[in-house]
Amino acid sequence: MEVTALRCDNDAVPVDLNADLGESFGRWRLGDDEAMLTMITSANVACGFHAGDPAGLLRTCRSAVRRGVVIGAQVGYPDLVGFGRRFLDMAPEDLAPAVVYQIGALDALARTVGGRVAYVKPHGALYNALVDHEDQARAVVEAVASVDDRLPLLGLPGAAVLEIAERRGLRTITEYFIDRNYTPDGRLVDRRQPDAMITDAHLAAERAVRAARAGAADSLCLHGDSPDAVVMGRAVRAGLLEAGMDLAPFVGSLR
Amino acid sequence: MEVTALRCDNDAVPVDLNADLGESFGRWRLGDDEAMLTMITSANVACGFHAGDPAGLLRTCRSAVRRGVVIGAQVGYPDLVGFGRRFLDMAPEDLAPAVVYQIGALDALARTVGGRVAYVKPHGALYNALVDHEDQARAVVEAVASVDDRLPLLGLPGAAVLEIAERRGLRTITEYFIDRNYTPDGRLVDRRQPDAMITDAHLAAERAVRAARAGAADSLCLHGDSPDAVVMGRAVRAGLLEAGMDLAPFVGSLR
Amino acid sequence: MEVTALRCDNDAVPVDLNADLGESFGRWRLGDDEAMLTMITSANVACGFHAGDPAGLLRTCRSAVRRGVVIGAQVGYPDLVGFGRRFLDMAPEDLAPAVVYQIGALDALARTVGGRVAYVKPHGALYNALVDHEDQARAVVEAVASVDDRLPLLGLPGAAVLEIAERRGLRTITEYFIDRNYTPDGRLVDRRQPDAMITDAHLAAERAVRAARAGAADSLCLHGDSPDAVVMGRAVRAGLLEAGMDLAPFVGSLR
Amino acid sequence: MEVTALRCDNDAVPVDLNADLGESFGRWRLGDDEAMLTMITSANVACGFHAGDPAGLLRTCRSAVRRGVVIGAQVGYPDLVGFGRRFLDMAPEDLAPAVVYQIGALDALARTVGGRVAYVKPHGALYNALVDHEDQARAVVEAVASVDDRLPLLGLPGAAVLEIAERRGLRTITEYFIDRNYTPDGRLVDRRQPDAMITDAHLAAERAVRAARAGAADSLCLHGDSPDAVVMGRAVRAGLLEAGMDLAPFVGSLR
Repeated sequence: MEVTALRCDNDAVPVDLNADLGESFGRWRLGDDEAMLTMITSANVACGFHAGDPAGLLRTCRSAVRRGVVIGAQVGYPDLVGFGRRFLDMAPEDLAPAVVYQIGALDALARTVGGRVAYVKPHGALYNALVDHEDQARAVVEAVASVDDRLPLLGLPGAAVLEIAERRGLRTITEYFIDRNYTPDGRLVDRRQPDAMITDAHLAAERAVRAARAGAADSLCLHGDSPDAVVMGRAVRAGLLEAGMDLAPFVGSLR
Repeated sequence: MEVTALRCDNDAVPVDLNADLGESFGRWRLGDDEAMLTMITSANVACGFHAGDPAGLLRTCRSAVRRGVVIGAQVGYPDLVGFGRRFLDMAPEDLAPAVVYQIGALDALARTVGGRVAYVKPHGALYNALVDHEDQARAVVEAVASVDDRLPLLGLPGAAVLEIAERRGLRTITEYFIDRNYTPDGRLVDRRQPDAMITDAHLAAERAVRAARAGAADSLCLHGDSPDAVVMGRAVRAGLLEAGMDLAPFVGSLR
Repeated sequence: MEVTALRCDNDAVPVDLNADLGESFGRWRLGDDEAMLTMITSANVACGFHAGDPAGLLRTCRSAVRRGVVIGAQVGYPDLVGFGRRFLDMAPEDLAPAVVYQIGALDALARTVGGRVAYVKPHGALYNALVDHEDQARAVVEAVASVDDRLPLLGLPGAAVLEIAERRGLRTITEYFIDRNYTPDGRLVDRRQPDAMITDAHLAAERAVRAARAGAADSLCLHGDSPDAVVMGRAVRAGLLEAGMDLAPFVGSLR
Repeated sequence: MEVTALRCDNDAVPVDLNADLGESFGRWRLGDDEAMLTMITSANVACGFHAGDPAGLLRTCRSAVRRGVVIGAQVGYPDLVGFGRRFLDMAPEDLAPAVVYQIGALDALARTVGGRVAYVKPHGALYNALVDHEDQARAVVEAVASVDDRLPLLGLPGAAVLEIAERRGLRTITEYFIDRNYTPDGRLVDRRQPDAMITDAHLAAERAVRAARAGAADSLCLHGDSPDAVVMGRAVRAGLLEAGMDLAPFVGSLR
């Protein structure tokens, strides 16, 4: 999805920058949460099903609270070895409680350090499934609504899950991936394709500014687990600020 | 611990009857939660670490709420294959967030069906460790208090965890095991011993009445996963009612 | 798949009766392996990914060896909570080593008690996926061949995996499900449908005899985890013997 | 354990250098197996219980075979989130089959690429437990012997497990940790202590040469997961070669 149209009156709307954090697991470290938290405004924190152990999630929540970064629950399939990146044909009656379980677990950790789960973002293969898989999409929407129907749900523009969420009365947040290429129909290029990821920090920053100017999405997503995530994050943040954008979380904003 | 002393003025205090529920896992069923919920007043519901998958936990919570049974979080070591019955040398900084995670996950499920986690009971080897293991005991107490310092904590009379909890200002609930034999110093006979369990329903009912009359503990514990759990539960409940006792959860009582 | 054609010269070929065993996990028991082992000739023993812990698998292998029942590796997706019954979109390069791992683990256990893994049968959603999913089918075939290309592979008649296995030079074994209904095109009726399972032992026995007479498949499959598995197994075995059939494992037969 | 005595006639015995490999898990990478395999002679490859997924283990085995490095099974407690570094009170009847399962799984992977499991080394908290815990030590020894009583077992000099293994007729291999400090009684300093690890590559190389000259142990152990593992490994290897030592695996040597 190339974003070209300019919406000049949009400069007043602050830009939200989100990234996936809390994705370490026990001995295994992934990403540099501390560094990413200096750049982003919303942290999609894993919940233990595809990544994240309780002690590590607590550390990430504590740092997020300290830095004023909003915490979202990044819910996923129960598939540690696959990092939640493989479609799992969960029945809706299993998926919905799995989502509730994850939100509740992370929220409890966040609250012990003065934070809370303020939105929900599905992860990996679940995120992609919810573009089309209406049964799973309905299950996730029902799960979020059953926990707190004021929790916004993040997703890909056009995804079935967002439409279902809106009909259910949930606030929906669309996002644009700064460092992922899109197919012509607005899907993400499969990670197994060589051109799935954008690794050039300068290009990523340009895409971010363009997307923000165009109001292409409610939030811009950076990946926290790529080797150059920190470098790219800094470039994107700097690019947005230089372009005169304000950075602020969508939760709490007037948007 | 044989309970012989009678406290005749005690009859007015209602008796709480608790049991471990929610211990199925996916395809594997364990215990008859529906039947047990017709007898008990407090349900120690597993939280997914030693047993319990989200969909099953939700079913148990829903049934508990329907029947007016109070829900407690039965937190355990992360050891499914060992059913939480093997000591795991978790560092306090790992154990505390693991307990918070479990309470939060179950509480979120309970709330979607109109309930909530109203107390905490450690499970299996963790329960036994907390009798002596002060570091783990402190971690569990801190975890409970950090979630909500009004949550009562169940334990074995004399356990270190209860003393630490009281110093921390938590309400503590002692329990007496109707169907477990005790060592002379008040510990549970190891499950690997042949005389660990009491299987005679009549004897169990007698023990329950005696313990209740003596005010030996704040709650009486039945096991839900033994083959005759339902038969024994009915005998115990009938015995208590015939002896003129009232059954009521300790949460919500004036005690 | 209704089996009507008689192959009268077939009576001399012994009938193999297989069932899924070793599907307990830790505290959770499933099926009555001891009873099933008195009836069947080939045991599809779980390998720890969808069910089965090492100690339980060892017990099942020991009993199988004592009773002269042939051991097969029942390999599955790594999905304990889903019991391997949910499709998981594993990449071939992950699936193949996962299959090798499972075969090797079970084989080592079997060998310590005088047995060995003598064939491979995919389980649950993997079994069903291999009917059509050529990438996963190729991965499983390559995995089996890489361990030992003399290991037969069990599957549904017409499944892609069997065709690929034959081209690869593996021996293939087709099976007929005595207690499952079939769709008109020879697939199993989905377990979520009410008519998926046949629960009438008499009918199952009739189906078994008919299938055996017709030579409809190389092996007949009974389920070990249904509540009436033992009753049905006895009826089927008795029916086959009364009909003059010999029961013998396909491994070791001249077939 | 400071090694000072010189055994001048020892130069003819080649030195074995072992390290823990295969400790990645799914998305999470740990250590640089490719680099370590250029330095060591014996690779203790994880088996999936404390670390290592099948696809990753296969990659490590393939590289080890290509480079002529001997493969050992690094068996551990089933504790991914704790990386096998926390004591788990497994009953011997559970531990022994868990060890067999792990050896068999890795061996099958190794054989598909032309290798095999040629020795066994317990990992982490299990390694430490086997110094004193005779029940677990016996279980591990029985497990190894039941798979193949020609498999050598690696351990800490003086550990109960080695004594039991020798009485059982197993070959035992003692090892000296180049990068770990020892307590006065020959145990490893607890990892939670600040002086547990030696991080100076020059010092490590000196220790290696001294230990090799003294014949202090049958094998020298390097850690593969520390940040400077590769640098230290190169220094140690270079130091040993400069000191005129030959490097060769203990398996296959005349020792």
